[in-house]
Amino acid sequence: MTQKGSPDDFLASAVEAAKQAGEIIRSGFYGAKQVENKGEFIGEETAAAGGNMELTNEPTWIVDPIDGTFNFVHGYPFVCVSIGLTIGKIATVGVVYNPIMDELFTAVRGKGAFLNGKPIRVSSQDELVKSLLAAEVIASHEKSIVDASTNQINSLLFKVRSLRMSGSCALDLCGIACGRLDLFYLVGFGGPWDVAAGAVIISEAGGLVFDPSGKDFDITAQRVAASNPLLKDAFVGALQQSE
Amino acid sequence: MTQKGSPDDFLASAVEAAKQAGEIIRSGFYGAKQVENKGEFIGEETAAAGGNMELTNEPTWIVDPIDGTFNFVHGYPFVCVSIGLTIGKIATVGVVYNPIMDELFTAVRGKGAFLNGKPIRVSSQDELVKSLLAAEVIASHEKSIVDASTNQINSLLFKVRSLRMSGSCALDLCGIACGRLDLFYLVGFGGPWDVAAGAVIISEAGGLVFDPSGKDFDITAQRVAASNPLLKDAFVGALQQSE
Repeated sequence: MTQKGSPDDFLASAVEAAKQAGEIIRSGFYGAKQVENKGEFIGEETAAAGGNMELTNEPTWIVDPIDGTFNFVHGYPFVCVSIGLTIGKIATVGVVYNPIMDELFTAVRGKGAFLNGKPIRVSSQDELVKSLLAAEVIASHEKSIVDASTNQINSLLFKVRSLRMSGSCALDLCGIACGRLDLFYLVGFGGPWDVAAGAVIISEAGGLVFDPSGKDFDITAQRVAASNPLLKDAFVGALQQSE
Repeated sequence: MTQKGSPDDFLASAVEAAKQAGEIIRSGFYGAKQVENKGEFIGEETAAAGGNMELTNEPTWIVDPIDGTFNFVHGYPFVCVSIGLTIGKIATVGVVYNPIMDELFTAVRGKGAFLNGKPIRVSSQDELVKSLLAAEVIASHEKSIVDASTNQINSLLFKVRSLRMSGSCALDLCGIACGRLDLFYLVGFGGPWDVAAGAVIISEAGGLVFDPSGKDFDITAQRVAASNPLLKDAFVGALQQSE
């Protein structure tokens, strides 16, 4: 039995909530195209509009009920529930569940990271040129936005092995944690709910989460990068040259 | 019972082979990082080096035992077995199996396309600006290659809703077939084994496979585009403007 109010107790609650939300996602997944025209989803936008965004010392849940909303609408399988918990403003519990692939990523601060109960580690890749990068480019009518986005990708493509774009920030973070991906960066995403859980999972898997500039990660800054410790310096250098 | 030598008989053989190959892929998937340093995979390169590439009127299997080899090595879940059959040079049977997600796409010419036994259709999207595009960019030290690749993406990002990069041509084709994706193009891929099965599956799902120029698809040309019929003209126009 886990102690009431302990991180493990919070983890158990988060896993249960993620599985229940995941069941709803899974049941709607193959019929998602009919849902598309029925209105807005309840997601991070609702939370942002109605919720208190100030982080206190109290245990605080940071939740994205569907990360990869556009993927869900299309039936593209990178969708997940992301549930993070901060205690004393420190990210302490992370749960990310992809119900389509039935992959549950979990971590409690100081106790390791797991995929479906098995320990996971970041990759041991130490060469940028052999690394798999995850990123997103932004579709827009605004030329400066699209140009900045693709210019950065252009610069990085000279230095890495290949590029993936999944449309789910939380799952990309978990991809770093389990070594599927070596490098990830994203600028201008929704908010803390996209990264709160993934950041704990990466840290507990031996990885690093940082600002793309190389400075400390700020959960409210809408800027994130991640890698294993061996690649961080080279990756930050490449990101700086790509701006 | 299906008649010996009939398309349905060939389909049954292809499904059995795909499931068996998929079992091998699945069993190696989570340990794939250890495999990385043990040498080359037997894949399309081997087939190309040793096999007869000329298509005859005889029933001819066109097989990719692992599409998404780099994904497999990294443990990234977009990997599949792709098995196509031509009879009289006409693509007649297509089987694509993703063993990680346990998704089996099948089609026999004239008999519809299926995902795990359920009929699938391409999307009904008719607006480019709401469409989900799948593509790949090429990581390289060659400036002209990288620039051409990202310039094309840059141009397309003004016109579509979002972009995904999966690293598996066969699964992107199946993504078009089941409506997860609206648009796909790829230039300079491996060869017929990447597209033989997917092309049948798309056609039977009501979609179109064509050359990015809008001309007829040539299975040996290493150039492919696909969409539903409603988007083809607008997509070809956007591709032409992006070159």
